[in-house]
Amino acid sequence: MQVNEVVAYIQARKERFVADLKEWLTIPSISGDPAHAADVRRSADWLADHLRGHGFPTVEIWETPGHPAVYAEWPAEDPDAPAVVVYGHHDVQPVEPLDEWDTDPFDPVERGEQLIGRGASDDKGQIFFHTLGLRAGIAASGRQAPPVTIKLLVEGEEESGSVHFADLLWAHRERLSCDAVVISDTTMWAADVPSMCTGMRGLTEAEVTLRGPSRDLHSGSFGGAVPNPLHAMAELLAALHDADNRVAVPGFYDDVVPLTDEERTLFARLPFDEDEWLRGAGDSRATHGEKGYTTLERIWARPTAEINGMWGGHTGPGGKTIVPSEAHAKVSFRLVAGQDPRKIQMAFEAWVNEHVPPGIEADVDVPGSGVRPCFSPIDSAGVSAARRAMERAFGTDVLFTREGGSGPEADLADVLEAPLIFVAVGLNGDRIHAPNEKVEIPLLLKGAEAVAYLWEELATALR
Amino acid sequence: MQVNEVVAYIQARKERFVADLKEWLTIPSISGDPAHAADVRRSADWLADHLRGHGFPTVEIWETPGHPAVYAEWPAEDPDAPAVVVYGHHDVQPVEPLDEWDTDPFDPVERGEQLIGRGASDDKGQIFFHTLGLRAGIAASGRQAPPVTIKLLVEGEEESGSVHFADLLWAHRERLSCDAVVISDTTMWAADVPSMCTGMRGLTEAEVTLRGPSRDLHSGSFGGAVPNPLHAMAELLAALHDADNRVAVPGFYDDVVPLTDEERTLFARLPFDEDEWLRGAGDSRATHGEKGYTTLERIWARPTAEINGMWGGHTGPGGKTIVPSEAHAKVSFRLVAGQDPRKIQMAFEAWVNEHVPPGIEADVDVPGSGVRPCFSPIDSAGVSAARRAMERAFGTDVLFTREGGSGPEADLADVLEAPLIFVAVGLNGDRIHAPNEKVEIPLLLKGAEAVAYLWEELATALR
Repeated sequence: MQVNEVVAYIQARKERFVADLKEWLTIPSISGDPAHAADVRRSADWLADHLRGHGFPTVEIWETPGHPAVYAEWPAEDPDAPAVVVYGHHDVQPVEPLDEWDTDPFDPVERGEQLIGRGASDDKGQIFFHTLGLRAGIAASGRQAPPVTIKLLVEGEEESGSVHFADLLWAHRERLSCDAVVISDTTMWAADVPSMCTGMRGLTEAEVTLRGPSRDLHSGSFGGAVPNPLHAMAELLAALHDADNRVAVPGFYDDVVPLTDEERTLFARLPFDEDEWLRGAGDSRATHGEKGYTTLERIWARPTAEINGMWGGHTGPGGKTIVPSEAHAKVSFRLVAGQDPRKIQMAFEAWVNEHVPPGIEADVDVPGSGVRPCFSPIDSAGVSAARRAMERAFGTDVLFTREGGSGPEADLADVLEAPLIFVAVGLNGDRIHAPNEKVEIPLLLKGAEAVAYLWEELATALR
Repeated sequence: MQVNEVVAYIQARKERFVADLKEWLTIPSISGDPAHAADVRRSADWLADHLRGHGFPTVEIWETPGHPAVYAEWPAEDPDAPAVVVYGHHDVQPVEPLDEWDTDPFDPVERGEQLIGRGASDDKGQIFFHTLGLRAGIAASGRQAPPVTIKLLVEGEEESGSVHFADLLWAHRERLSCDAVVISDTTMWAADVPSMCTGMRGLTEAEVTLRGPSRDLHSGSFGGAVPNPLHAMAELLAALHDADNRVAVPGFYDDVVPLTDEERTLFARLPFDEDEWLRGAGDSRATHGEKGYTTLERIWARPTAEINGMWGGHTGPGGKTIVPSEAHAKVSFRLVAGQDPRKIQMAFEAWVNEHVPPGIEADVDVPGSGVRPCFSPIDSAGVSAARRAMERAFGTDVLFTREGGSGPEADLADVLEAPLIFVAVGLNGDRIHAPNEKVEIPLLLKGAEAVAYLWEELATALR
């Protein structure tokens, strides 16, 4: 395969690629708005037709109790070749506030090298580079099929919480069996700093209730002589972190896969402006967190405990001098590679019960089983292959990031039991979920080029 | 003066005393219910007529923007005799739930030695023993006037917060000038354990707001790397007490008048059942509080800090994984003899500002100027005189208590700048504020006897 043939194929079809994407972007597939249910279906049908017209032998609409997903399969010629699931979504965010858009969100326009419209970056544009890149790779190779079996899964409910996605995966688990999952729904660090995500933090949540007296007591009559659940809650949650801002629950860090020197070095190479980041963090006035780690390490690769909500006693206007009956808190833990949400839940519950003072009763309620963290090491076969493909396309070093939270990616890793590989060309500046969403057309073409190389790399790497 | 003459006078008028009190108790002077405004006025008029008919040379209705008070004055013969304000209230609590009353709350009935009806103990009965006792003392002395000038002030809004009482005191401050204030609106320890209150705790309140990011942040993207105001609040409030459960605000205890050995010894003589007290404290499971003090000392004579309310972040159903923008808490301090609410407010505000971590902004809002504690030492002239009077009436040792909170008593002490003397014969078992309120008629008569002696004792003690 000649690099030039891939680039030539893509350049030759550039106008058509943009024209087709623009057509798709006119469909307001807002999954969160029931009034747009028919549009989400129309978007799925449009994509299915497009994939059929561009070589995919198998294209299906997969129904859910909500909005439909599109599934397309293009088998490798070699029946023993690895299989790869490619994940994206065809639904989009709402467009309010409309008056902040410079153009109609569903009448996409080109401005210089940018394409502006809802879904241009998140995520229609990023699915679309796959269709072009796949054909470019096949054409350049002189064969009729890709070097790995491609299983493209494009869901229709990502922007409304992927509520039926895990069920969909379980229902089609056999057909989706694969050696890796390529996710194209994240971002790169910057247009001139190509990067790949290598993992996402998991999550487990708990609600803590502390009970003291059976009713609110008059603080004049009883204050200072019976335990106050709000005091107990303050003391409990103050003890949740130690002096180094590490989570004090015993065993919390036991299974954490530590950051490697290579990953820390590569993180450190990212041009990170902490002041700008603080402005983006709601104008936070200072960084804070686990001792010995940088801000990026803290949000991407270290587990945390956060109090998300806390309440009890009199919370309305004016004073009410009571010893309240109950105190409540919602706590969540972000988890990283190696940690098991269920194990953390149990450790936290035991810790709460050990730390409750005499006279206070504790109840820890855990909703659901949490989200497992996902992580593919930089030196893993899949990530190494994708890194080579990205570096070939961009002609420069690829750096690495992680993400602080996770969505349907965790379901993909859990249900399909395959490593995740994040290949994306969106930018943080693409204004996704906001007015005037845009995508850089040259980056979409680079993405197409990267995946043209990627399937070839993975055919070898995953065998 | 012969003791027997006082007792004889009271015994001879016992039936009439009860009959008159019953008549007054038929008036539903519920100050908290606007529908009963005319009844509160009728109650004031009834009392004024009664006082005029029983010897008071001066009786006035004092208007307020709410319900009227009754003022009656009976000057001593000797123009240089001390003056004493006697405080009580003629309004009563609502009677709901009505179906838990065995009898009509405003159709008082005698059952054995008990008189049952709303206001029988709190506070009409306790005002009424004064009118009988004053006349008994005068009659027994063979004179035409009391040995001290009596200034009876009976307010009509105590059960609805005494909202206009301080203004009323300021408006009539000259006429109310006095050497002591006798309060008859508290309780004794038990029918067979006569006791006197010697002080009430003061109060100051504050609302603390801690601010972090300007908006709630996604805890996946930012959690663990910026300060969380709820964590800061938990740490702040956990630090409010030290390991001995003493308030950690510097200077908090500087001005506290310590408990004397005598008061501690007398407190310890009270037959206190801690298990029963815990049941009354909303079935609290354990006592708690400042190291080195008993439960009674903690609630009566030691200052405290209580969190009355705390809130921030997501407090509704389900999870919301955020780093919240703000955290709030309402804190109040019960203060004891010697402490100045304003000084404590300033010390707390300074302490909060010193303890706020980097990146968090604190705001301490202090509503009003607080309530000063009031306290009359056991060996003070007024309390000693009242102790002698009570011991003469009850024929046994009088013990001492304090109260954990305060109402209009603090205003009386502050505005009139006179020591308070608590003389009361109500019991904790009188079911005040509850269905089937009652009073022990023999205790009302003992109260009358005690104040007959009291004025004589005070005439000497306060001179």
